[in-house]
Amino acid sequence: MTSRIATTRWEGDLMRGKGQVEFASSHAGRFDVSFPTRSGNPDGQTSPEELIAAAHSSCLAMNLSGTLAAEKLVARSIEVTAEATLGPDPQGGFAITGIAITLRADVEGLDAERFAELAATAERTCPVTKALAGTTITLDAALV
Amino acid sequence: MTSRIATTRWEGDLMRGKGQVEFASSHAGRFDVSFPTRSGNPDGQTSPEELIAAAHSSCLAMNLSGTLAAEKLVARSIEVTAEATLGPDPQGGFAITGIAITLRADVEGLDAERFAELAATAERTCPVTKALAGTTITLDAALV
Repeated sequence: MTSRIATTRWEGDLMRGKGQVEFASSHAGRFDVSFPTRSGNPDGQTSPEELIAAAHSSCLAMNLSGTLAAEKLVARSIEVTAEATLGPDPQGGFAITGIAITLRADVEGLDAERFAELAATAERTCPVTKALAGTTITLDAALV
Repeated sequence: MTSRIATTRWEGDLMRGKGQVEFASSHAGRFDVSFPTRSGNPDGQTSPEELIAAAHSSCLAMNLSGTLAAEKLVARSIEVTAEATLGPDPQGGFAITGIAITLRADVEGLDAERFAELAATAERTCPVTKALAGTTITLDAALV
């Protein structure tokens, strides 16, 4: 079991307030966040959706490399882009309405069909995918 | 609707390979990631679990400020810590087995019981909480 911690300190209300989120386990970063830069132009500030996209893309890249390794395959390169969308929730309030994954990999020794199967397995077994069961995830995977 | 994008580029296998995750919408950061620093000592590197914790804590801090605003309350300060744990999945492979939230707020004009209700509402309606339906979330909320 491995745990990682992040802390956000916030002052003020939603529309004019501001916060700072800190990667408290690694100390790799500390970032300003606000609602206007979350819902509108990011203006250089990250947001919960960008952080979710970063978590998902990094988890899936690792999980695909592990899925390929189980087949004795190593990718020359893997690129995973995740696009997380915030929008109105039909049940009320807001929701992350979807995450669109685009996965491209340079792998020798397998055909497009077998790669599509392995990419789908990697997506399905990715710990972040499993945690994100409350949103709709789409996968566009192809060899380059 | 607002979308945010992150991209991870990975080279090599799972155990010895390495990647870089980029906040592609805000350009606020680019971080090295690897499996050994994800599952063991972070050694200055972030991980999918730390990024999930950052997304959840920042979303919940904003959502609590909005929930309080709906009651015409403004917190002097809100601090939200999220601890995301990676462990074996009883169904196979690995999973984010839980996210423990610790929420502390300095708010004038309400008692502990009413605050606990509002904190629980904020947690339940937080877009990141809703997306993370596949893991177990616990909430420890108190006024300071």
